[in-house]
Amino acid sequence: MGRWQPDARERLEQAALDLFVEQGFAETTVPQITARAGLTTRTFYRHFADKREVLFGDEEIPVAAARMITEAPTDLPPMTLLTGALEAFAHTRFEHRRADLRRRRDIIRSDEGLTERELRKRAMLSEAARAALSERGLDPTVAALLAEMCVAVMYVSVQAWLDGDDDRPLVEILRSALTALRREFVSAPC
Amino acid sequence: MGRWQPDARERLEQAALDLFVEQGFAETTVPQITARAGLTTRTFYRHFADKREVLFGDEEIPVAAARMITEAPTDLPPMTLLTGALEAFAHTRFEHRRADLRRRRDIIRSDEGLTERELRKRAMLSEAARAALSERGLDPTVAALLAEMCVAVMYVSVQAWLDGDDDRPLVEILRSALTALRREFVSAPC
Repeated sequence: MGRWQPDARERLEQAALDLFVEQGFAETTVPQITARAGLTTRTFYRHFADKREVLFGDEEIPVAAARMITEAPTDLPPMTLLTGALEAFAHTRFEHRRADLRRRRDIIRSDEGLTERELRKRAMLSEAARAALSERGLDPTVAALLAEMCVAVMYVSVQAWLDGDDDRPLVEILRSALTALRREFVSAPC
Repeated sequence: MGRWQPDARERLEQAALDLFVEQGFAETTVPQITARAGLTTRTFYRHFADKREVLFGDEEIPVAAARMITEAPTDLPPMTLLTGALEAFAHTRFEHRRADLRRRRDIIRSDEGLTERELRKRAMLSEAARAALSERGLDPTVAALLAEMCVAVMYVSVQAWLDGDDDRPLVEILRSALTALRREFVSAPC
């Protein structure tokens, strides 16, 4: 109990991101990460299955997204529900982490395997949202479309936010993105 | 000239799909495919870099999509242009190939590496559409959103079409998908 560090996970993440940026993802070992963080490899493996999981540790995101959709009031229109879920994610998971998320993105882009893992993760999130929307009684194709669209809005908005050199909050970019999509749909005959 | 077969590519594809279904993708070799097709391995390699390319040979799809977007009249609203492009793709690349596309989907689902390749292919298509829309002068974020959304509409519609046990044309499913998305956007405040 005495030696337990409440911020061990955070320290390991910071040390790993530093090393991935400095010397490359492939070249970085778990002992290097724990040495930098001043922690043991035993502690590392209590938090992460391997070094890749430092980048993709938010495995519970699809579960959290599905729960938000499932637990929302049944009479909420799907787009209202999904907009609320996107904004909640922006606030709780992204807004305060821009610098780290930029480093993470650069590391993922530098490695083919990590890029593929990111695409898999995105597909898993879409699938979780689709299943949860479908369980609310939505038409299966509409559920799939809305899930894909929301995940796309989230990813595109996060990219724009990470690219931006101003301090515009992600939640504002998300809202503009949804408004812009809506405008395109409304202004053209489908 | 005399021995050249205009349908060699098609015969190789059919033989490969047959074998992938019968005995698995990993277990199938190029000589087995060419033996089944009654062609030489030399002919195989004139058409495909490897057996995986039989499944992902439509590498020109992103190029074709980008060209459609680039060459469309400049005053066409983006959604009108994209709807037209989706319908053109449905007609020229999908509509007559449902049975083969079903077999292809089953094979891809059975193999982790093929599933990842499919996700990469989809990301490349989104990226090509995004770049082409951006070149038309669209706001970069809107270009990315519309590209992602159209690719999602295409993939979801193709899945629904392959799942369907009726003979509803893909182009009809596509139109319903776009109409459904539009309705969700219009009926809820963003």
